Order: sequence, then C-alpha cells, then structure tokens
Amino acid sequence: MRRNRRCLTPARRGFNLARTKGPASHRIIFCGRRRRAKRGQLDTAVLSIARKEKAAASFAAAIVHLRALCEADLAAVNEAIVASMRSQNDMIADIAGHLVNAGGKRLRPLLTLSAARLCGYGGDDHVLLASAVELIHGATLLHDDVVDASALRRGASTANIIWGNKESVLVGDFLFSRAFQLMVDAGNLKVLEILSRAAGVISEGEVLQLSTQKNLEATFEMYLAVVESKTAALFAAASQSGAVIAGAEPEAEESLRSFGRNLGIAYQLVDDALDYSGHDAALGKSVGDDFREGKMTLPVVYALDRAKGVERDFWRRTIGEGRQEPEDFEKARDLIISTRALDDSYACAKRYAARALDDIAALPDNSYSQCLRELAASSVARIS
Amino acid sequence: MRRNRRCLTPARRGFNLARTKGPASHRIIFCGRRRRAKRGQLDTAVLSIARKEKAAASFAAAIVHLRALCEADLAAVNEAIVASMRSQNDMIADIAGHLVNAGGKRLRPLLTLSAARLCGYGGDDHVLLASAVELIHGATLLHDDVVDASALRRGASTANIIWGNKESVLVGDFLFSRAFQLMVDAGNLKVLEILSRAAGVISEGEVLQLSTQKNLEATFEMYLAVVESKTAALFAAASQSGAVIAGAEPEAEESLRSFGRNLGIAYQLVDDALDYSGHDAALGKSVGDDFREGKMTLPVVYALDRAKGVERDFWRRTIGEGRQEPEDFEKARDLIISTRALDDSYACAKRYAARALDDIAALPDNSYSQCLRELAASSVARIS
Repeated sequence: MRRNRRCLTPARRGFNLARTKGPASHRIIFCGRRRRAKRGQLDTAVLSIARKEKAAASFAAAIVHLRALCEADLAAVNEAIVASMRSQNDMIADIAGHLVNAGGKRLRPLLTLSAARLCGYGGDDHVLLASAVELIHGATLLHDDVVDASALRRGASTANIIWGNKESVLVGDFLFSRAFQLMVDAGNLKVLEILSRAAGVISEGEVLQLSTQKNLEATFEMYLAVVESKTAALFAAASQSGAVIAGAEPEAEESLRSFGRNLGIAYQLVDDALDYSGHDAALGKSVGDDFREGKMTLPVVYALDRAKGVERDFWRRTIGEGRQEPEDFEKARDLIISTRALDDSYACAKRYAARALDDIAALPDNSYSQCLRELAASSVARIS
Repeated sequence: MRRNRRCLTPARRGFNLARTKGPASHRIIFCGRRRRAKRGQLDTAVLSIARKEKAAASFAAAIVHLRALCEADLAAVNEAIVASMRSQNDMIADIAGHLVNAGGKRLRPLLTLSAARLCGYGGDDHVLLASAVELIHGATLLHDDVVDASALRRGASTANIIWGNKESVLVGDFLFSRAFQLMVDAGNLKVLEILSRAAGVISEGEVLQLSTQKNLEATFEMYLAVVESKTAALFAAASQSGAVIAGAEPEAEESLRSFGRNLGIAYQLVDDALDYSGHDAALGKSVGDDFREGKMTLPVVYALDRAKGVERDFWRRTIGEGRQEPEDFEKARDLIISTRALDDSYACAKRYAARALDDIAALPDNSYSQCLRELAASSVARIS
C-alpha cells in the first residue's frame, strides 16, 4: 500500500529509490540513493547490449506467445479489418491500409481476444470487438499524427505526411465509424456502452494533453490523468469487453478491466520514457518527438521538479517557450538521466505493471492468463 | 419518370427549361429556352426584395412551425446536448458550446423528433437519438471547417479560427463519441446500425468531395454521390431513426428514410447554389467559399459543361489550377447566371423537394406530416 501511494505522489521528496528502481535493463546505470550521476559518467553508463536484448526479447516473446495462442482469432480480426476498410474511394482504402497494415503490435485487440478466451468464450463476436478496438486505435493514431504533426510511425512515414492532414482527419472519422459498425454487429449493448465511453475518454485525454503541453506547472496527477484517458481507457475497455462478451462473472470482468488499465498506464509510461532513452530504429519513430512538441511527460515532470537555477531556465526556454536549439534534446536527455527522472519513470511503470499482475492473479490459470501475466511482467522492459 | 431522368442527367443538352425552372424567387431572372442573359442584364436582373423576402419567409416559417410543434422535445434535446458536452476540460466545453449553441436550425434533430411523433411514438428515446444526430452533425462541422480552413459559420468565427485546428479535430472526436453514447443509451440496435452506417457514409462523402475538388472532369453523378453521402445520408438516417424508434411499419419507415434523403439532396443543392447567389449576412458564412476552395458543386459542373474557349480557360485557371484573382468570384457568378447553371441547379433542387413531398404523401395526415410537407415545399426557396 505504501509502495502504491508513493508511486502516485512521486513528486514528494525523499522516498527510497533503492526500492523503486527501474527494470534490470535500466537499473545498472546508477546506484545509491538520490545520488546524481556525473555528466562524465553518461557515456560509460550505457546499458550492455546483451542485457538490453534479453530484456527486450522477453516482451517481444510475450507478444509472440500471445499472438500464437490467438492465431486463428487474430487472422479473423485482420480479415474483419480489411473488410471494414473497403470503400469505393481508393484514397480511403490506401490510407486505412497504410495504417492498419503498418505492422502494429495488435496489442489492444489481443487483449480483447485473450480476455474472452480466458473467460471460456466459445463464440465469434469477440473478433468483431477486437477489430473495433483496433480501428478506434487506428483512428486515434491518424488524428494524433495530424495534431502532433508527426512524420514517422512504426518506421514508416505517417499518413498526414503522405496524403495530407485533411485526408487523415477524414479517414480517421471513417475508421471510427467503421469501428462502431463492427461493435453494433456484435449486438451487445453493454459492450457498446463500454467502448463508446472509452472513445469519449480518449478524445478528452487528447485535449487534456494539448492543454498541458508547454505547461511547466503540469503535475504528476495531471500527467497521469492524460495517460489514463488517452491510453489506459482503451486498454481497459478492450480487456473488459472480452470478459463481457464471454458472459464472465462481475469479479472477473472487473479484474480484466483493471488489468487493462494498469497495463495501459505502464505501457504509456514506458512509451514516454523511451522517447528519451530509446533508439529511432527500434521505436520506429523519432526519439525526442515529445520533447520537440513540448509534451509534459513524466520524465520532464520529474526532471523539472528537481531542477534549479540554469536547469529550470533550460526547461522554461525549451518546453515552456518552445525555443529549442539543435543540441537541446541531448541536453534534456542528460538532465533527465542525471536527475534520475528516467529511472523513476521506469520505476513508476514497474509498479503499474505489478498491479496489473495482481489484478489477474485470482483468474483461472490457463494458457491465456499465463500469456497475459508474461505480457505484464515484461512490459516495462520493452524497447519498442 | 422522364422528368426525373432529366434531372439525373442534366448535362444533356436541350431539355425544356420552361418546365424545369427554379423557385419563384429565381424564376424571374430569365425567360425563354436556353437563352443566355447578356452580361449587361445581370445588374438589372436582381430579384425583387419583396419576392425574396416572401420566399425566404415561407421556409423560415416552416422551421418555426416545426420547432413550435416539437417545442418540448426540442428543449429536451438541447438539455441532452448540454449534458453530453460536459467535460472536466474547459476547452472541450467551450468549443462544443460554441458550436452547438451557435444558432443552427436543428433541422436534423427536428426530422428525428417529428418522424417519431408522426408515427405515433409516445416515449422519450427519440430525444436521445435526435441529440445524437445533432452531435454527429456538429462533429462533422468541426472537422469540415478544419478541412476547408473555413473562417465563418452561422455568422460567427469557426472553432478552428478561435481555438485552432488541433483542438477542433479532437473536440470533433469527442462530440462523435458522445453521439454514440447517446445512441447506446436509447438501446435500439437497429437504430445504432442505421446511424453508425450513416456516420461512415458521411466521412466517405467528405473524402470523395476532397478528391473531386479542383477536378474539372467531375460529373453530375460524382457531384450527386458527394451530396448523397455528405448530407443526404444523415437526413435520411435522422428521419428513419424516428420511425424505427416508434416501431413504425416498414413502409412508413422507408417513406421517411426516402423523404429525408430527397430533402437532404434538395437542401444541399440549394446550399451550393446559395454560395453563388446568396448574401453573407443571410448565410452567416462567406459567399464564394466553395469557389475559392475549388469545389466542383453543381453550378460549376453545369457552367463548365456549357463553357467554350475563354470561359473554359477561366474555369481551368480558377478551379482546376486554383489561381484566382480578386475579381474572379464575380466573374464566376456572372458565368453561372448567364449560362443558366444557377437556374438549373435550383430546378434540380426543386425536383428532389418534389420527390420528398411524394415520399410522405401516403403517411397519416397529422400536424407533424403537415409540417414536414411545408418544410419540403419551401426548402428550395430558402436564402439561408
């Protein structure tokens, strides 16, 4: 309990970092309690390639296991998505195809599929729901990339760069509508309620993120509210929907909803940390995008909270005023590492991943629940 | 039947304009068969103020009558919309409020409300559906204004101008999600199917419009496909939903669906004609926007079809290549009037309005059906 409270109010000083360290892949950088790494240490404090690869492999392996377990269902999801994107208009088909076939992990639909099967579902409607979840996610990505003016996603140029912003906005709307049509086809009003509410929460989260952008007063709580709504809400709804369509007991449904939420928070926390610690090639997007857009993600919230004098001036200029110079991202990354902001971000992610594991501890022990546990356990160690 | 065929293939030459004239307010401009008005005649061919006001009053009066008839229901719709827009985020509430309270006609929700009551509905769920229909429309307007870079709507600055494009995209998504939540609350899967399909068709229509923009090869059929999807689909779904929630017989449901579709086409045809013949103050938006955006609306399709030599060069430069000079809009308007393109656009609108009237001729004669007839009969004469 104390551990959880500390994670939720991490801006408080003096908590024992020795107990809140990040994953193995990051823990080796520093040791000692709140001791700053010297600038000179940074180059030598690079993670060993072997350990990184091992850590990454475990998450990648968890995804591979989950995909293998849901292979037939996932193939049906892909078919349903392709059928949904059909349009007399070539441009719609092109843009939707570019996005949906661009090699995403299919993590959200996998949650729906596995949650349903975990609860003993024997029908087919979970495929419709999983497809709808992926299309909602796709619509959000299209609009996100317009809003953030992103150029790269999953290693490919974004639709707004190839086709234009107008087209991305409209095709996002198209995908969103198709998602609802699929949900309606599944014919379950409770699931419709869960997923349509999640869609509303996602857009609220995106607007909230926009209003925290460049806002140096943004707190951990504000950051968490953004993460909960823009990411965790769909993870939660995706998992819960699987349980609902399977007619699961209320306890199992709530366990899977909470699992999705906590996994989603951990996932986004890692995403935001990777924007300062990852590599372009592995991420499939440009490292430093969040910094350049002035996003107040957790590493910056922490680093700013711990900054004084010239460091505060640096954050004010680069994030608050958006005046950035070519070397500023490297400087920001150095500050985030030296103030242990990155370490603590991973530590926070780890706590949420632990909660996700707790959430499904009481669920039946079968191959689906094992895979979900493997996913949660390795989620913080991912590099892409 | 011949009349309808002619309307659907208006690019064919030689049909008798004496039988396809526009509404009274426009009919007085020209007389004779395919005779061009001389340029010098244009200033003197202005509609008489008195006749215009009378024509406009009849449409405005129809709306007033319909609103009065649905007064209590419409008040409930406004309450449901206000409740739906509530958000912890001030910006969402501001943008949504700006749009939804900006004095729209509430034409689409009125169709749902009156269709339900016309069919004898005694419940409350039609209010949820009517609110959902208005929110879908609102979401579309927000995204439209971003796509078209519009500055003025209903006499006020557009949200994208006041708050920005990013905000408009995200709040549009928010409204769209809220619309679905309202539909789900109504708990009728058939209505959910109708409205979610309409939402998909709308976004397809918007993309189609984008691809016909600046395309001098665009035909009447392509134009009609855009109008059917971007406007008529929601009019049709709004009317049909009212009938479905009322448990109407299939014939009545189909009549109201077709009524909505034909009224929607007439409505959009007039909208597109008003962009060349209306006045900023009455329209609440800038006359000439479609021209400046290179939209291939019916007046341009007709005028281009009838243009030769320097006139074709003019359309190629201004619409095809988008190279416009300050006086070009007036020149375009003159050409559209002198080639009778405007007259024929109104004539086409009139035919669809007549079809809408036919559609509901067999429905019970009550105050609701009378109001819908009045609406269809006056729809082509509107000036805003």
